[in-house]
Amino acid sequence: MSSKTVRIVEDIMSANDDLALQNQTKLNQSRTLGINVMASPGSGKTSVILQTIAALKDRCQIGVVEGDTAAVTIDADKVLSAGMPAVQINTGGSCHLDAVMLSKALPELPLDTVDLLIVENVGNLICPASFSLGTHFNVVIASIPEGDDKPYKYPNIYRGIDALILNKMDLLPYIDFDIDYFKRGVQILNPKVRFFELSCRTGEGVAEWAAWLKGRIDQFSVGE
Amino acid sequence: MSSKTVRIVEDIMSANDDLALQNQTKLNQSRTLGINVMASPGSGKTSVILQTIAALKDRCQIGVVEGDTAAVTIDADKVLSAGMPAVQINTGGSCHLDAVMLSKALPELPLDTVDLLIVENVGNLICPASFSLGTHFNVVIASIPEGDDKPYKYPNIYRGIDALILNKMDLLPYIDFDIDYFKRGVQILNPKVRFFELSCRTGEGVAEWAAWLKGRIDQFSVGE
Repeated sequence: MSSKTVRIVEDIMSANDDLALQNQTKLNQSRTLGINVMASPGSGKTSVILQTIAALKDRCQIGVVEGDTAAVTIDADKVLSAGMPAVQINTGGSCHLDAVMLSKALPELPLDTVDLLIVENVGNLICPASFSLGTHFNVVIASIPEGDDKPYKYPNIYRGIDALILNKMDLLPYIDFDIDYFKRGVQILNPKVRFFELSCRTGEGVAEWAAWLKGRIDQFSVGE
Repeated sequence: MSSKTVRIVEDIMSANDDLALQNQTKLNQSRTLGINVMASPGSGKTSVILQTIAALKDRCQIGVVEGDTAAVTIDADKVLSAGMPAVQINTGGSCHLDAVMLSKALPELPLDTVDLLIVENVGNLICPASFSLGTHFNVVIASIPEGDDKPYKYPNIYRGIDALILNKMDLLPYIDFDIDYFKRGVQILNPKVRFFELSCRTGEGVAEWAAWLKGRIDQFSVGE
């Protein structure tokens, strides 16, 4: 790679970080806690978001930004059906959200009345890890059928996250998945992560996750 | 995006295509059929490759290139244990293989005695679709737990593939997955794709997939 190319990449990342900071300032002004939800395709991101809305909708107002690589509105429609404001970002084939995309989505949401903004990133265990959006913390959703070796194979996405949800726990009886091996892989990279075992199908673990998240929203709203 | 940036991106893609052609020439010279296997993380790429090796190892020689974003050799070790030559490409965090990476891996394999080269791309439903490697055709592995909406959400990866494997069929009783809806999504994008329903756990469908692949290897070896 030539030094010119390196310089261009550095410029892009630096511009992204600047805009991420502006996004966070805007979220801070409206006292909206923003979380960036990252996962592999099909890990159940939208299902977890719908469960989170169901658990918290009587106690706070939630807005959702849906990142998709195509123009389908499958996920955004589900969130709207759950009665919460949602905006879809179509990345036009791009493999991750970035701060520019989020900056264009934020004005479309009634942030002044939104306590929690959930950003559902594009389904991808690699590229989203490299782009700050301006949200306050990162959540990764893993799932039992993906296999217990993912933290070892895709380490970057497991670094710098505050919470990790292991979804589809109801499938554990049918799949070889060593939870201790999985956890060790995560803890080497990220010893402080909060870990939630969850099943959107049975509801297992949803209350614990929602209670922890509500705690973070409350801390934030009083000026953590 | 400035015209300068566009130009640089075009140059990169054009250089990749040139090198992909060189890779294909090298594979043609040794009469090695190359396939590029793409999938989401945890769809069972390595398991399908191991099942393919078990089904065909007495009838042809198979080599494998394993693409990983990290320096772990979990997948390559499994292939070596199955008695076949394997080379690992560590992309250093990058989200896809490209023709340069494959060109560096090819000399590490005994191509003159290899009938089938299986390239396991990085687990990602987006970026690998944009980079030709020089292999002869593309295969996507989907899996039941990923959900039936993936062809609609990640259309690019489903274009231009010759074969589609729907893996983890053994989990169908435990998951809401509409196979007709899934197939319709694929066929809109790619009407000619060959479709295989498979379970690496039960062995369902492995024989059909292996027989079709062996047919392609035979056609290729006599100069299709």
